[in-house]
Amino acid sequence: MKIVESAPNFSEGRNEEIVRQIIAQAEGVQDVWILDWSMDIDHNRSVVTLVGSPEPLLEALFRMTKKAMELIDLRTHKGEHPRMGATDVIPLVPVMNITMEECVELSKRLGKRIGDELNIPVFLYERSATAPHRENLADIRKGEFEGFFEKIKDPRWKPDFGPEEVHPTAGVTAVGAREYLIAFNVNLGTTRIEIAEKIAKAVRHISGGYRYVKAIAVDLKEKGMVQVSMNMTNYKKSPLFRVFETIKREAERYGVPVVGTEIIGMVPMQAMLEVAQFYLQLDDFDMNRIIESKILEILANKLKEVEQ
Amino acid sequence: MKIVESAPNFSEGRNEEIVRQIIAQAEGVQDVWILDWSMDIDHNRSVVTLVGSPEPLLEALFRMTKKAMELIDLRTHKGEHPRMGATDVIPLVPVMNITMEECVELSKRLGKRIGDELNIPVFLYERSATAPHRENLADIRKGEFEGFFEKIKDPRWKPDFGPEEVHPTAGVTAVGAREYLIAFNVNLGTTRIEIAEKIAKAVRHISGGYRYVKAIAVDLKEKGMVQVSMNMTNYKKSPLFRVFETIKREAERYGVPVVGTEIIGMVPMQAMLEVAQFYLQLDDFDMNRIIESKILEILANKLKEVEQ
Repeated sequence: MKIVESAPNFSEGRNEEIVRQIIAQAEGVQDVWILDWSMDIDHNRSVVTLVGSPEPLLEALFRMTKKAMELIDLRTHKGEHPRMGATDVIPLVPVMNITMEECVELSKRLGKRIGDELNIPVFLYERSATAPHRENLADIRKGEFEGFFEKIKDPRWKPDFGPEEVHPTAGVTAVGAREYLIAFNVNLGTTRIEIAEKIAKAVRHISGGYRYVKAIAVDLKEKGMVQVSMNMTNYKKSPLFRVFETIKREAERYGVPVVGTEIIGMVPMQAMLEVAQFYLQLDDFDMNRIIESKILEILANKLKEVEQ
Repeated sequence: MKIVESAPNFSEGRNEEIVRQIIAQAEGVQDVWILDWSMDIDHNRSVVTLVGSPEPLLEALFRMTKKAMELIDLRTHKGEHPRMGATDVIPLVPVMNITMEECVELSKRLGKRIGDELNIPVFLYERSATAPHRENLADIRKGEFEGFFEKIKDPRWKPDFGPEEVHPTAGVTAVGAREYLIAFNVNLGTTRIEIAEKIAKAVRHISGGYRYVKAIAVDLKEKGMVQVSMNMTNYKKSPLFRVFETIKREAERYGVPVVGTEIIGMVPMQAMLEVAQFYLQLDDFDMNRIIESKILEILANKLKEVEQ
C-alpha cells in the first residue's frame, strides 16, 4: 500500500465555513483520509493534512483547489503570513512504500491538471522544481499575490503549467514533492517585534543560521506576544532541539522568556523522538524501539498479504 | 485486530545461545511477532518484547517458559537484578482493540497452564493480583529464588496456580496484566555506589519518591560507573522527564554528572512524546498529531474491513 501525505495551505484562517467547505471536497474521496486541520487567525491561513493512495489523493487535492478558487478572493485577503494563491501551496510527501521520484511525477500531473482545468498558473517547487531558482518556495512567493501580476511576465517566472496570467482572484499555486516540513513556532514573552526579528535572523539559513530553517518574525498582537515562525525543511539535519535551544539562548540575551511553542499540523514521530533522545541523553535508541512503529510495519505487511 | 504485548524476563543475560533458543520458540508461532530482545550482562537477564493476537501470543509465551525451564538453572544463577524464576515475569499489556480486563483473563489462562503443565508455581500480579499484597512484583519477588522455598509455605504466599512447592531449578513465575512498564536507567559519572543509592531512594515510591517509580542502585563495575536502574510503572502519572530532572538535580548536589541514559526494550510513543513536549514547551499537542499514529489507526481499520 503506497501512502502519500499532503498538507495544502489555503489562504483563509478566519471564516470556518469556507474552510469546512474546502475540506468537504476531500471527505468524499475513497482511500483518502484527513488527519488534521487547523486555522490560524493571525496568519489568516489554514492547513489541512491528509494522506492517501496516490491516485485518490491527487483527485482530492484537485477538488479542494477548485473549491478554494471558488470561495477565496485574494483581492480582499490580509494576514501575517505571505501568500500568493487561494490554494497557496500543495506539497506531496512520500510516507510509505513510495519514492521521492514517484512523488515528483505525481506533482507534475496534479500541477498540469490545475493549470489546464482551473486556469491557475502553477509553479513546481522543491524536488519537483524545473530550475534551481524555483526550488525555494519563499523565492517563488516573493512579491506575493499583488506582485505576481508583474513578476509572471519575467521569463524566469514563467509558470510550469496553466496560463501565463495570474488568476484574478485565486492567484498562483505552488505544487511540489518534498521531505517532511515542520511548521514550528516559538512564542516570546515580549511585545517587541524587533527581538523576534533578530532571533529569526539568527536561526534562518539565508542570514547565516541553520541550513534547513526558514524563519520570520510575527507580531501576535491579540496575545501580546511576538513569535519566531519557522518552517523546518529537514528536521533530520537541522533538528528542532538545536534550533529551539539557540532561540532560547538568544532570547535570554534580551531578558525575554520563551513562553511556549506550537507545531502546526502533523509531525513525524522521528522528529519528536530525536527531541526526547537529546534531552534525556538517551543512548542507543531509534524508531525500532517505538512499539507503534513496529506494529505499523507489521500491519502494513499483513495488509499487503491479505490484499494479494 | 486485537493486539497484546508481552515482555517476558528470563534469568539469562550472558549465554546468547540459551536466549536464542528461548526466542526460537516464539518465532514458530503465526500471528506473533518479536519486536526486540536484549541481554544484560550485569543484570544477567534478558527481555524479549513480542506482540500478537491474544491466542497465539499465549501459546508463544507458554513455549518460551517451557524452554527457559529446560535450559536455565537458578541454583547457579548470579546477577545484579533480583530474580525468582527461570522465566521471572510475564506481563500482558493491552495495545490495540483490547481491554485491560481481557488481558487479566488471558493472564489467568496462561498462569494456569504454566502451573498445570510445567509444575511451576505461578503468582498473579499487578492488575491480575488476587490480593492487594500480591500486586507489587517486588513484594512477590522478595527473598528471591533462594528465599522462596520458605516463603511459599506462608499462606499469604500460596501460589495462584501450580504446585505449592518451588520448582527445583526454574523457581516460580509471576504472570499479570499491567500498563506499559518502561525500564529506564540513568548512568552516573562516578564509581561511588552510595550516590546511586541515595538518588534511587530519592525518586522511588517506597522511600518517599514518585508514586510509579521503582529504583535500585546498580554498580556497573566494567564501565566504571554506577546506575540508577528504574522501572517506571505508569509513565503517564510519573513521567520520565520529571524523574530524570530530579535525578540530574540530586546528582548535581554531589558534583556528579549524568553521562547517559538507556531504555531497555520497547517504549510506547506517548512516553517519548511527553518528554519532547515538556522540553520544547510545546502547547496543544498530542498523539493525534503524530502522523504514524494516525496511519496506524487507518491501517488497522482497513485490515479489519478486508478481513471481514
